[in-house]
Amino acid sequence: MSKVRTPLILVNFKTYAEATGKNALKLAKLAEKVSLKTGICIGVAPQYTDIAPVAKEVSIPVFAQHIDPIDPGSFTGHVLPEAVKEAGAIGTLINHSERRLKLVEIDATIVRARAVGLTSVVCADNVEVSVAVAALKPEMLAVEPPELIGTGIPVSKAKPEVVTDTVERVKKVNPNVIVLCGAGITKGEDVAAALRLGTKGVLLASGVVKARDPSKTLMKLAKSAVDI
Amino acid sequence: MSKVRTPLILVNFKTYAEATGKNALKLAKLAEKVSLKTGICIGVAPQYTDIAPVAKEVSIPVFAQHIDPIDPGSFTGHVLPEAVKEAGAIGTLINHSERRLKLVEIDATIVRARAVGLTSVVCADNVEVSVAVAALKPEMLAVEPPELIGTGIPVSKAKPEVVTDTVERVKKVNPNVIVLCGAGITKGEDVAAALRLGTKGVLLASGVVKARDPSKTLMKLAKSAVDI
Amino acid sequence: MSKVRTPLILVNFKTYAEATGKNALKLAKLAEKVSLKTGICIGVAPQYTDIAPVAKEVSIPVFAQHIDPIDPGSFTGHVLPEAVKEAGAIGTLINHSERRLKLVEIDATIVRARAVGLTSVVCADNVEVSVAVAALKPEMLAVEPPELIGTGIPVSKAKPEVVTDTVERVKKVNPNVIVLCGAGITKGEDVAAALRLGTKGVLLASGVVKARDPSKTLMKLAKSAVDI
Amino acid sequence: MSKVRTPLILVNFKTYAEATGKNALKLAKLAEKVSLKTGICIGVAPQYTDIAPVAKEVSIPVFAQHIDPIDPGSFTGHVLPEAVKEAGAIGTLINHSERRLKLVEIDATIVRARAVGLTSVVCADNVEVSVAVAALKPEMLAVEPPELIGTGIPVSKAKPEVVTDTVERVKKVNPNVIVLCGAGITKGEDVAAALRLGTKGVLLASGVVKARDPSKTLMKLAKSAVDI
Repeated sequence: MSKVRTPLILVNFKTYAEATGKNALKLAKLAEKVSLKTGICIGVAPQYTDIAPVAKEVSIPVFAQHIDPIDPGSFTGHVLPEAVKEAGAIGTLINHSERRLKLVEIDATIVRARAVGLTSVVCADNVEVSVAVAALKPEMLAVEPPELIGTGIPVSKAKPEVVTDTVERVKKVNPNVIVLCGAGITKGEDVAAALRLGTKGVLLASGVVKARDPSKTLMKLAKSAVDI
Repeated sequence: MSKVRTPLILVNFKTYAEATGKNALKLAKLAEKVSLKTGICIGVAPQYTDIAPVAKEVSIPVFAQHIDPIDPGSFTGHVLPEAVKEAGAIGTLINHSERRLKLVEIDATIVRARAVGLTSVVCADNVEVSVAVAALKPEMLAVEPPELIGTGIPVSKAKPEVVTDTVERVKKVNPNVIVLCGAGITKGEDVAAALRLGTKGVLLASGVVKARDPSKTLMKLAKSAVDI
Repeated sequence: MSKVRTPLILVNFKTYAEATGKNALKLAKLAEKVSLKTGICIGVAPQYTDIAPVAKEVSIPVFAQHIDPIDPGSFTGHVLPEAVKEAGAIGTLINHSERRLKLVEIDATIVRARAVGLTSVVCADNVEVSVAVAALKPEMLAVEPPELIGTGIPVSKAKPEVVTDTVERVKKVNPNVIVLCGAGITKGEDVAAALRLGTKGVLLASGVVKARDPSKTLMKLAKSAVDI
Repeated sequence: MSKVRTPLILVNFKTYAEATGKNALKLAKLAEKVSLKTGICIGVAPQYTDIAPVAKEVSIPVFAQHIDPIDPGSFTGHVLPEAVKEAGAIGTLINHSERRLKLVEIDATIVRARAVGLTSVVCADNVEVSVAVAALKPEMLAVEPPELIGTGIPVSKAKPEVVTDTVERVKKVNPNVIVLCGAGITKGEDVAAALRLGTKGVLLASGVVKARDPSKTLMKLAKSAVDI
């Protein structure tokens, strides 16, 4: 288990076949290698079922993709923050565009995450929603225009003003929130641009998971973060 | 990994603290011991994060508590049938009263479960809903009047006609569906009654997980099934 | 207010601009005229806000597009069956593919609809789901393969076996359920085909609402039903 | 149709039998009388089906209880902002504790409401959530601790710091948002307290709808607002 540091490259494994089960473990180990070589913090967010096996084998930070704002009890089929923590996760995505939550659930989930010691990374799709999220006091937020997710068109190039406005306006409401950005990030220059625009890292998925050579891709992303 | 046989005692771990992480593993091992001693099939349904660790250590059938009717892809925070399968589950609960699904989702989930080789155990709260579920062709269904769940008042005693009507009417619509019953089951006599009413087993949770001595309780439940 | 008769042509106004507010009233009056001329029962399902104004002005049956399975009480923003009834509706769509419900909600909604005297028309997307719906004892069900909705490719032509299988298998589970079909219906011959395949009517939307001349289109649909 | 003014007393009719159909109209007329006599703006939020009949008969502002963030089109069973507007509503509640929305839906609903000319009144259950809501730029927000709703214990007495903190912190994020408070309000002194704590009005429901004499109760509430 390892602490999160910035700049952070956070790789969401989604439910991709290339990042399920044995493949999840393999990919996490590649990420660990790159992280150890470059010194850049690389986090991975595998599926629930893969958290324990992955966290057992790698020293980089492991995130859940979602948790439910529940206490231990009668919640069949839900994701208990304590379970995710005990499995070895150190944080969790919240409100990803593929798993949107009610406003009150986001609030309650951040509170529960903090209570069990999980780092909150809340996703938001535009500047206003990012500012709203910041008011709820998560550790991190990731601004991701959903129309760019999976396109290969990086937010840092297509909508740099969304990133800079988010960084600036979030700072006013809650200067403690660490801002990441995501959507369309696949290259080293995208990471560099994201950092230059004022973020502390990136959230990405297919750019790494579906890359021909994920190891090489991760190395380029990480090196680009070193150079900034 | 092990096949499901009937009579079946299926223990839902829900998100109980007593059945999370290390506790889940401990409880699953107790269940395995009782199963080996009595010859009765005992299944366990731990949380997603505990499926892999539990399935690795025990020879009894492991179920998920829920799966999403999705294919591999961009479904952050969802539960991929393939992931649950690779983690070692052989089946899954569907539509538990604490995780109700849309009708079309139940249909799609049963289809996906079948496609990846997971046994479907669909929950239903009354006779009509059970018949509706049977039309969707799951392997098993568990009729559970929600008002009795967690009460200690067994469905087999409080509402025996719900159980017998379900068994009878389901048979007409789809004779291949194995009917279980649940809600309020805590004692050996409840299991015996359930089997005498025509079911092939029981689904229970707090009756075992929250029991003072889960091992002793399970032993009584299993022995009672042997005697029928 | 008027009783439903079969064959039934049921026009779903959805939230189309062409069928909102004043336009809803105009379209309902056109439908009434065609119904009076041909003797064929034409029902309309306007938005909630248009039920009262429409029901006040026309003698044909008015349906809601959805109701919630709630009792009078603290349910801000929900759709009370009694409210819909008092506004003048005589029935309601349930589980339309654009407003899918949980299985237990469909069951509860049918029960509530019956309690307040509203005719249930439950939508289903395939044969299995139709049989499941029939087990819940609605007055009517409409089988609508969602992939054909709005395409202009009529289910009665593209998937006649879905229609005939539904009619046949529903009859076995519950012979009292009146079966309609929908999706892609725009012409008189589609209605004729639907009736010949054993249904008692059709559910359609854009085929009428978005038609160049809705009155003329409705007339053709209705005449085609007369001729069968 | 009438403009909203402050101080505002906004009466949510929920799905109470006492405020459905003919009863809704009767109650709205009482509210209008009190408003005309006292000069205090009283708004009413009846069910969707009652918006048109009510708005036609009274001169006080009528609100919807919820709208969906949709455009005209294929959204069977949903609530189109344009439909609510054409029926005569001048605003809408959003995210009431009985109809919670996803964060992105709240954002989109406020945008849609603005586009069609409906005043947004977004509900929030605590200070943090209120600040988050303010970042989304609604016209009004109503802070309502859900545990006090329907209790008769007024938020202005039980949790005055929630009200004052909300007023103060919202001002910093977005000084244009008008803050109301709600939950447990039944008496004139509750309204007075709410206004003294810095809000511009109250949102209430059972306190008026379920009152023995709604007219008398409303009169006391309104007079109390006059005296401030």
